[in-house]
Amino acid sequence: MTLEVPLSAGPGTPTRTPASADAPPWPPVPGTPGFATAVEGALTEFFTAVRPSVAQLGPVFAEPADALETFVLRGGKRTRPAFAWTGWLGAGGDPDAAEAGAVLTACAALELVQACALVHDDIIDSSRTRRRFPTVHVDFEERHRARGWAGDSAHFGTSVAILLGDLALAWADDMVHAAGLDPAALGRFAPVWALMRTEVLGGQLLDISGEAGGDESVEAALRINRYKTAAYTVERPLHLGAALADADEGLIAAYRTFGTDIGIAFQLRDDLLGVFGDPAVTGKPSGDDLREGKRTVLVAEALRRADATDPAAARLLRDSVGTDLTDEDVTRLRGVLTELGAVGAVERRIADLTERALAAMDSSSATPAAKQQLRGMALAATRRTA
Amino acid sequence: MTLEVPLSAGPGTPTRTPASADAPPWPPVPGTPGFATAVEGALTEFFTAVRPSVAQLGPVFAEPADALETFVLRGGKRTRPAFAWTGWLGAGGDPDAAEAGAVLTACAALELVQACALVHDDIIDSSRTRRRFPTVHVDFEERHRARGWAGDSAHFGTSVAILLGDLALAWADDMVHAAGLDPAALGRFAPVWALMRTEVLGGQLLDISGEAGGDESVEAALRINRYKTAAYTVERPLHLGAALADADEGLIAAYRTFGTDIGIAFQLRDDLLGVFGDPAVTGKPSGDDLREGKRTVLVAEALRRADATDPAAARLLRDSVGTDLTDEDVTRLRGVLTELGAVGAVERRIADLTERALAAMDSSSATPAAKQQLRGMALAATRRTA
Repeated sequence: MTLEVPLSAGPGTPTRTPASADAPPWPPVPGTPGFATAVEGALTEFFTAVRPSVAQLGPVFAEPADALETFVLRGGKRTRPAFAWTGWLGAGGDPDAAEAGAVLTACAALELVQACALVHDDIIDSSRTRRRFPTVHVDFEERHRARGWAGDSAHFGTSVAILLGDLALAWADDMVHAAGLDPAALGRFAPVWALMRTEVLGGQLLDISGEAGGDESVEAALRINRYKTAAYTVERPLHLGAALADADEGLIAAYRTFGTDIGIAFQLRDDLLGVFGDPAVTGKPSGDDLREGKRTVLVAEALRRADATDPAAARLLRDSVGTDLTDEDVTRLRGVLTELGAVGAVERRIADLTERALAAMDSSSATPAAKQQLRGMALAATRRTA
Repeated sequence: MTLEVPLSAGPGTPTRTPASADAPPWPPVPGTPGFATAVEGALTEFFTAVRPSVAQLGPVFAEPADALETFVLRGGKRTRPAFAWTGWLGAGGDPDAAEAGAVLTACAALELVQACALVHDDIIDSSRTRRRFPTVHVDFEERHRARGWAGDSAHFGTSVAILLGDLALAWADDMVHAAGLDPAALGRFAPVWALMRTEVLGGQLLDISGEAGGDESVEAALRINRYKTAAYTVERPLHLGAALADADEGLIAAYRTFGTDIGIAFQLRDDLLGVFGDPAVTGKPSGDDLREGKRTVLVAEALRRADATDPAAARLLRDSVGTDLTDEDVTRLRGVLTELGAVGAVERRIADLTERALAAMDSSSATPAAKQQLRGMALAATRRTA
């Protein structure tokens, strides 16, 4: 699963008088509806620009390409563009300068990397739905079946989704290139963009290998969080924004500390909610992470403690996590996780990480408005209930 | 299947005195062993540069990353870099100029796009071997099984291969960015690179949709050839080389005509060899394309003719292509394809395309050496027996 960080409503940054009554407010403020509108506007502009080269190949290609566009524009919290844009503003980027539109477009391109990650992740996780819609591979499996086409419908759906994920990844780069950044800014952006993609793909490989190989250690779970979630979702987006603004090394280091720590804390909160969350609030059946056998820091911490002090609890955890648990089983496991002290340990880790992150941000040279924005985003990500 | 164009031995271009006895000749000449060595040298340099960011994620990621490197360096004809490099030389690129190394690196990055295409294609085609080695998804399926890991081995192998293909696609871009091109050259390169990737992914989507949907038309088969093979393998690589050299519109148009026509002619030759080739020369069981039900222009042309003149032959083709044919069945189908005039029609198409391609090249402003090189590559691609 690839995560979405919920964003707080940002502080009331002053906005330019809009050119028309319909124009969204500028600058877009993460956590307000105007931010998603601005990101989706940049994405729509890209999809419009690429349409002639899609159309040239004919309607058979236009159909899956349209499905990708629908998928990207359907929603999502636009978390990565929000951190990148805030990183740029916080490093002194001027939303009224000529390059601001190009910067927002480059930030929005992160949503195409994310589209690739989600589409391919859903194949890997065998997920059938995402945000209440069929996943892309299931969508094309169903189209194939409905048309009575030849061959295996599921294999066809997977094949289309592999290619559409590739297309999203290629288009992410194309969108960056076509954003209109000046060459120096693009030159600073590119190596961070490279690291980010290697890290998220590496993190996903760590995840599936760790799961298959049965690595139960806290270290392995933290490493996956670090690269698959924290680097990809917070650290590198902030770093990208800083690179665009030509920030100094000190601010980049502060952003990276903040991003890594908040990103990991966010994932730890997510792990707790996956076991203890209220289904009415999270929208997911309670305990699903336990049924799926997700290798979280929470479970790793519990196993480490149980191995040292309570062999019966260790046996219970190993025998039941990842199986088809009843609600009573889930309740019992919750008790075990709490009694072993794993829940408390994870809560302490979240608190420590958040404190360290906020300290790094506070003592940085980021603008006061960005500090306030990032503090809000950090607390929203780590204190949430859904 | 994604194709490899065989290259002729190039003309004896003068070479710089090598710096040491071990240094490969410069400039590298497509069709000579030195060219593959030069491309592999550039790829090795990239893999070496990226190694620290891989190592940071630990050995669990290093294992699949190493497998990708092995896959890329294991061999292949380096066809796309050869056309790109020749396109650059033919547009006046100077192999003794300072930027020549950066140009060769950017051309070599095409092999990473190709790695993504091959790794993902092998999943889509359910291919178990490539160049006598297990395909990437089969390799990791076998590693999973040998280690007695948890979960489904085949699904694990597919998951790793999806992510490694993504990594290759991302690294292709990173390699271009890190090549050291000047910003103006990179700015000319990027939009052609964008078109090429959209076209090859679109061509693959046309291919699987056409196969599933049962589109039997000659037009559909030609359209797939155009985008999946010709644009990706010859036209855009030449165009990329021309863009790097800042060629004029006239030469770009000539390259594109040549590339499209030779690329399609190459695929048509491949289709004929897939049915009539000598297994001792092609290395593939004769008639395998008929058993697999590959939707070639050859079969489309035969069906078109049979529908007009010979309903019994049309029925036979539709009932037998794509089934488990005996050698006698294959022999019989060969006779039908020939008697319907489809073989002759495809041969004429190859001859016409080749003639038009060579005429466009001859009357272009390409350098005489590049014309000679491209003529050799064209004839090798369209007159080959394997």
